[in-house]
Amino acid sequence: MNIGFVGTGAMGEPMVRNLLQAGHAVTVYNRRAERTQALVEAGALAAASVAEAARQDIVITMLADDRATEALVLDGDFIAAMPAHGLHVCMATIGAALADRLAAAHAAAGTGYVSAPVFGRPPAAAAAQLFIIAAGDAAALDRCQPLFDVLGQRTFRVGDTPSAAHVVKIAGNFMLAALIEAFGEASALTARHGVTPAQFVEVMTNSVFQVPAYRTYGGLIASGRFEPAGFPLRLGLKDIRLALAAADARDVALPLASLVRDHYLKALTRGYAEYDWAALALVSMEDAGAASRG
Amino acid sequence: MNIGFVGTGAMGEPMVRNLLQAGHAVTVYNRRAERTQALVEAGALAAASVAEAARQDIVITMLADDRATEALVLDGDFIAAMPAHGLHVCMATIGAALADRLAAAHAAAGTGYVSAPVFGRPPAAAAAQLFIIAAGDAAALDRCQPLFDVLGQRTFRVGDTPSAAHVVKIAGNFMLAALIEAFGEASALTARHGVTPAQFVEVMTNSVFQVPAYRTYGGLIASGRFEPAGFPLRLGLKDIRLALAAADARDVALPLASLVRDHYLKALTRGYAEYDWAALALVSMEDAGAASRG
Amino acid sequence: MNIGFVGTGAMGEPMVRNLLQAGHAVTVYNRRAERTQALVEAGALAAASVAEAARQDIVITMLADDRATEALVLDGDFIAAMPAHGLHVCMATIGAALADRLAAAHAAAGTGYVSAPVFGRPPAAAAAQLFIIAAGDAAALDRCQPLFDVLGQRTFRVGDTPSAAHVVKIAGNFMLAALIEAFGEASALTARHGVTPAQFVEVMTNSVFQVPAYRTYGGLIASGRFEPAGFPLRLGLKDIRLALAAADARDVALPLASLVRDHYLKALTRGYAEYDWAALALVSMEDAGAASRG
Amino acid sequence: MNIGFVGTGAMGEPMVRNLLQAGHAVTVYNRRAERTQALVEAGALAAASVAEAARQDIVITMLADDRATEALVLDGDFIAAMPAHGLHVCMATIGAALADRLAAAHAAAGTGYVSAPVFGRPPAAAAAQLFIIAAGDAAALDRCQPLFDVLGQRTFRVGDTPSAAHVVKIAGNFMLAALIEAFGEASALTARHGVTPAQFVEVMTNSVFQVPAYRTYGGLIASGRFEPAGFPLRLGLKDIRLALAAADARDVALPLASLVRDHYLKALTRGYAEYDWAALALVSMEDAGAASRG
Repeated sequence: MNIGFVGTGAMGEPMVRNLLQAGHAVTVYNRRAERTQALVEAGALAAASVAEAARQDIVITMLADDRATEALVLDGDFIAAMPAHGLHVCMATIGAALADRLAAAHAAAGTGYVSAPVFGRPPAAAAAQLFIIAAGDAAALDRCQPLFDVLGQRTFRVGDTPSAAHVVKIAGNFMLAALIEAFGEASALTARHGVTPAQFVEVMTNSVFQVPAYRTYGGLIASGRFEPAGFPLRLGLKDIRLALAAADARDVALPLASLVRDHYLKALTRGYAEYDWAALALVSMEDAGAASRG
Repeated sequence: MNIGFVGTGAMGEPMVRNLLQAGHAVTVYNRRAERTQALVEAGALAAASVAEAARQDIVITMLADDRATEALVLDGDFIAAMPAHGLHVCMATIGAALADRLAAAHAAAGTGYVSAPVFGRPPAAAAAQLFIIAAGDAAALDRCQPLFDVLGQRTFRVGDTPSAAHVVKIAGNFMLAALIEAFGEASALTARHGVTPAQFVEVMTNSVFQVPAYRTYGGLIASGRFEPAGFPLRLGLKDIRLALAAADARDVALPLASLVRDHYLKALTRGYAEYDWAALALVSMEDAGAASRG
Repeated sequence: MNIGFVGTGAMGEPMVRNLLQAGHAVTVYNRRAERTQALVEAGALAAASVAEAARQDIVITMLADDRATEALVLDGDFIAAMPAHGLHVCMATIGAALADRLAAAHAAAGTGYVSAPVFGRPPAAAAAQLFIIAAGDAAALDRCQPLFDVLGQRTFRVGDTPSAAHVVKIAGNFMLAALIEAFGEASALTARHGVTPAQFVEVMTNSVFQVPAYRTYGGLIASGRFEPAGFPLRLGLKDIRLALAAADARDVALPLASLVRDHYLKALTRGYAEYDWAALALVSMEDAGAASRG
Repeated sequence: MNIGFVGTGAMGEPMVRNLLQAGHAVTVYNRRAERTQALVEAGALAAASVAEAARQDIVITMLADDRATEALVLDGDFIAAMPAHGLHVCMATIGAALADRLAAAHAAAGTGYVSAPVFGRPPAAAAAQLFIIAAGDAAALDRCQPLFDVLGQRTFRVGDTPSAAHVVKIAGNFMLAALIEAFGEASALTARHGVTPAQFVEVMTNSVFQVPAYRTYGGLIASGRFEPAGFPLRLGLKDIRLALAAADARDVALPLASLVRDHYLKALTRGYAEYDWAALALVSMEDAGAASRG
């Protein structure tokens, strides 16, 4: 299958490598062309323009945020360049409203569109161990499935409406932020009763929470070291904003998400924008006089 | 070793059975004597009074709440009945302030005291798979260790101050309540975007949260059935109150715990006191018009 | 002075009458032309288009929300129609970001712009008792002052940046919503202790809070009657969203505003969109089983 | 009438002076005897013990907090010393639960009890301008009314259950704390948009909030000077705890009170215990990088 791939950053690059390794022809595009060079050496074709990537059978976008996706897909000739049978698969984390606009634009143009965001960080992408949340037309999803099988360990289908997949992804990220918040508050409480964060994290991640998410974020909290960031705090805030926006659009109150958002804003004021998003925990710990930094 | 065991409810009973099976002599006491009959048939000795149980080498208390523990241990002749080398091990979930009072009372009487609350529900108690959080004098903890090895799969020591173990336990329960709250809000969000709670829970518990705690509470949320309760909501509220009290005593703000407390109070008003404490999730889901009950 | 006036609703109409009475020539525009008829009978001139209103010395806009203001001022030929010495005065409640965009558009066109939102409901507008919050170029504000003196009882100048006036207005509305929230929670508490909301409101508004804002909203809470709305709940939510957006743009956490927003969203789910925004109080009262409706 | 008065601090002293001036015989008691000397010089009789004060026709308590009231009234011979027709009037701010215990103890002893807490600071006490919230047996309240008329400008009766009056008082203090919180957040928002707190407070207290409560706390926020304290922050926290306890006892969630409590706890951690309780506003302002201290 001829595949276009737009956005070859920390996540996109290993995904393209896996597609190449599985024998697909992949035409890659990045706004900063130098970002595609290593992939070209690995067998990818370099697109001179985003339209050239869009011209393939299936084009995947894996861009940084809503603005980049909107700029490259909706504002230019991306959709116009797609073939009649073309199918756009957005695998990045974007908001529900933008996913709806993408679906509407493709429907108007007669081109295909599915949402398929993922859970997993770059190492999981490299190991083809992503979890893929997919939604859209069933036949279109069937067409994508062989690619999903190359990229991830499991695909979950959550219905016909593409944006639903993005809402699930956003809701999942909110749950991750919530666990960081809970870990931060709980660590503040135990620290003020004489138990170090390292001790507390050791207990929790070896008893009730023996799962990578808790181990990763608990480990950061225990160490007090939040740089370099695996996922920067400012992007964590972006995702919480997406959750609140998707909720607001359906009159849903998410008080815990509001709390997390407020703590992220305080973290920005304290200068933690580029820390790992687990530094959310610092806000509660500092406010309790319980933070010791690594 | 001669062991006294006070409180033979859903948790205490299987713990006593494991101690008996390991060859210990166990003198059991329950305020409702009929609750000890089955254990006596299994080889336990029935204490005629709580003092008789306290008279053993080590006496474990596993009572429902602070009030019961205070009434049986502090208000009566429990401590006076203990031998000079006696050691009291409180394995129930009690507040930090009460644990401090127990420690002080034992110190005044010259008797030993350690805190050793547990993570795990009755099936884990039966399977000797509890996680035990222990704190107190190191020599006293060493004396208890053979019993802990019979009762649990792992013991974590968190220092010399007994109440610290209870704070860790309380903080852990707060983290569990926080995950229920997050699951409830996230399910409300996704439900209002067309994804059923069952679908959402299926995704999350088979991707980022592959761990029993999320599976148990997610399963309850997905089914919408909260009776019979594994752990009743009113006791979940009790534990959150213990967390807030332990925090308040050290000037620590726990905004997420406050949020959970408020939602538990609303759940009481809605008549959910005897539902499983996962029914916390119902508050956010109902408030968003997103609850469908099993 | 020749004045254009765009938006002749519940607030705009009495403001135009006061301007006419003071001897000004007022050219009025409303998207629904029938809304200007009574004013024409009172001496106003009817503009055939919004551009005709914009062509006057000073043009005041008093439109329902950001969308209407953006559509009429930024998307059309409003600014192009203004004379070289023209001055646009936005007296409606709009967001800080839109005020900044208006200021930038006028600066680019060489036309004048000031922000001058008001505190006060329609009866205050009719009685020329508005409080006017004004910001912008000092000379431009001086030109407006005679009009402000006709329309209000007092003008407060808050600096050179027009959007600052809108932020003050939005912050003030947030403080009003906060008092409603506080009144609702306090009424829930006292009601559950046997004091009726009417009794409680009577005490508070005749002791520490002897001021119209508390009397108005307390009276609504005491009566339990929220229709017809003086200011509908959905617009109250809109203003809280503007506060959160203005805060978010400067990395400011407003946890109380987040709480109010969440309660407004719950009120929408309960069907209170067209109730007076004081029905915010119902959420806490209902959640406590303490609401009795009028 | 022979009056006993227990607690002659900043509030109690001017109240006693007003009672003396009205011609009453007042027997005063303070745990620190030197605190009554000036009153004795003004005509009061010094009680050698709290029982001597309790022996009068009506005995008023005006003590610092629940602990002091419990210690002097419930733990000693206060009630036993009261004559058969004796009547105890608690005018201090105490919790609902303690008021219920006082009522029960008096009922058991056959002595009278009413709750009559007040709104007003020491200058209002001196000027006999207090607002008195009274609850209890109607005949007992009638007996007290002449004293209330001497002490305050107006008495509000809120029913037969004494604790109801204390709940109203506590709810009122919560509303005051809520306005401080709102003022703090709003000031943070406007400050970050270039409007100084002094400007913002000037606008609000001369437009929608022309009332002493807003002027007092707004003035403190504008000045950034929170010492010396009119009412220290740690006592503000105490009162919020009383509100949360009274709410908790009736399953009422007060999310705004929880938020205020959490911010007070953070203020303690920052060292503001002895600042005026308006320093609650500092938490939000500092968290937004918007605090400038006087």
